[in-house]
Amino acid sequence: MSTPAFRGILVPALTPFKADLSPDADAFVSHCKWLLDQGADGLAVFGTTSEANSLGLEERMNLLDYLIESGISPDVLMPGTGTTALTDTVKLTTHAVTRGCSGVLMLPPFYYKAVDDNGLFESFSEIIQRVGDAALRVYLYHIPPVAQVSLSLNLIERLLKSYSGTVVGLKDSSGDWTNTSAVLEEFPSLATFCGSEVFLLDTLQKGGAGSITATANVNVGNIRNVYENWQEDTAKELQKGINRVRKAFENYPAIPALKAIISAYWEHPNWKTVRPPLESLSAEDTQRLSDTLKQLDFEIQTDDIRT
Amino acid sequence: MSTPAFRGILVPALTPFKADLSPDADAFVSHCKWLLDQGADGLAVFGTTSEANSLGLEERMNLLDYLIESGISPDVLMPGTGTTALTDTVKLTTHAVTRGCSGVLMLPPFYYKAVDDNGLFESFSEIIQRVGDAALRVYLYHIPPVAQVSLSLNLIERLLKSYSGTVVGLKDSSGDWTNTSAVLEEFPSLATFCGSEVFLLDTLQKGGAGSITATANVNVGNIRNVYENWQEDTAKELQKGINRVRKAFENYPAIPALKAIISAYWEHPNWKTVRPPLESLSAEDTQRLSDTLKQLDFEIQTDDIRT
Repeated sequence: MSTPAFRGILVPALTPFKADLSPDADAFVSHCKWLLDQGADGLAVFGTTSEANSLGLEERMNLLDYLIESGISPDVLMPGTGTTALTDTVKLTTHAVTRGCSGVLMLPPFYYKAVDDNGLFESFSEIIQRVGDAALRVYLYHIPPVAQVSLSLNLIERLLKSYSGTVVGLKDSSGDWTNTSAVLEEFPSLATFCGSEVFLLDTLQKGGAGSITATANVNVGNIRNVYENWQEDTAKELQKGINRVRKAFENYPAIPALKAIISAYWEHPNWKTVRPPLESLSAEDTQRLSDTLKQLDFEIQTDDIRT
Repeated sequence: MSTPAFRGILVPALTPFKADLSPDADAFVSHCKWLLDQGADGLAVFGTTSEANSLGLEERMNLLDYLIESGISPDVLMPGTGTTALTDTVKLTTHAVTRGCSGVLMLPPFYYKAVDDNGLFESFSEIIQRVGDAALRVYLYHIPPVAQVSLSLNLIERLLKSYSGTVVGLKDSSGDWTNTSAVLEEFPSLATFCGSEVFLLDTLQKGGAGSITATANVNVGNIRNVYENWQEDTAKELQKGINRVRKAFENYPAIPALKAIISAYWEHPNWKTVRPPLESLSAEDTQRLSDTLKQLDFEIQTDDIRT
């Protein structure tokens, strides 16, 4: 079994839009480079936080190409490639592997509900076989609150048995520590990432790989500090610090709130733009959240990004 | 306000696959032609029953082109075009309108959950404006059990006020007669179709347009008979007859069951194939369902389709 390429703190990078709702590719590159400068171990571009499912297939592939052309190494990229459609997922996954990405984060097909493990196994199986590339590394994406389709322990076990070396990791965005804990115990060889940094220390203590978390878009340095120091006496206090920031954001819809804060700190009006069906955070809520973050002595290092 | 083009019984046509899971375009054309011969008033291709969300964008557009090239008039076509992504929905919708389709059936963006009416209004609004074609006719697709994103009465009202003449109809697949009834009462100008034929007579009695229903793939003649005779004394008995067939299917997953029955009646082994994450109906369940249908004296007119 091969070693998963990723460990540590990965950022499901936000996708900035222009006023006309088209992706702002240059702002995207700047954001990604800034995240890496701040210590991100990798970029899970085109995740839920990235509004990837609000982007067209061509837009996703063009943005990935542009990131790589702009000097971001595919070694640090774990693009999301799971769609509702077998053939589109194969297309996005093949594209990512061909471009040299170290892994892909794969949603199950999420349109049909109440599908069972056999159908989901067949789905992942078909995708892996059709991509047919030894370089493919799949990180399963378990996010039942949004996808409404779950990846059970039995399904994970079957996939690991059949595709050891290809299925190498999992992001657990269930928000349910009992589930993350069970995954960590049952599949120690799997690179398991918690989907919220509030579980980071717990995840690492049980042998997990790290976290892929929305808030890392604005707080990756501090979150990475917990990862770096998880065996130190300071770990619990550091964890409390990042929990406070996470909690501040949790009072608002995550994507609009993160974009609004970046827009405010970076003095970049368009950064607050989201694609429908999401809605931008109101000015009042943005002010309220900014005030809360100030009370927490929260700062974003923006010197090299403000344009 | 323009008159909606569609009334009566539309079929969300199943999409047949070959053994390799690629769409069987010729079998699709045969099925669509047969449905029209059997009395279908229109074809809501690429709906939920069509496994459209398991098809790639290119596959959907190619199949639509092939139907039209094969002699099926775009006048009778109401393709599903709603995806999770603004730009892909615009692409599919523009394609359908350009090809002359009389309408499109539009899901809301269904990845993000708990989005509110403003975000959904903006979504439909952006799509309609970007397509920017006076020939566009949108039929809203309300299917909360699957999409998990609902179209509220307030949202429908706002869309009708802003896009009268463009938003002209709705398919209600909520399975909740209270909702269908409210839509019929509040929006008499909207062409409202029930998503299950069990509500057909009720829908017509309240001024509705008809039904777009999965079971019409095998029973369109009898369902249309209710539509034709809804003001006659025989209507209630005819309605009971189609309810019995519907109920027989409701003991099984709808799409695999419909495909299995077509496969059996048409002696076409591949017809039972579904794309993952769905699973084909087992031989035992197919036999059991066939037996039930025989007890109901249910027949499919297959003379001109069996190949």
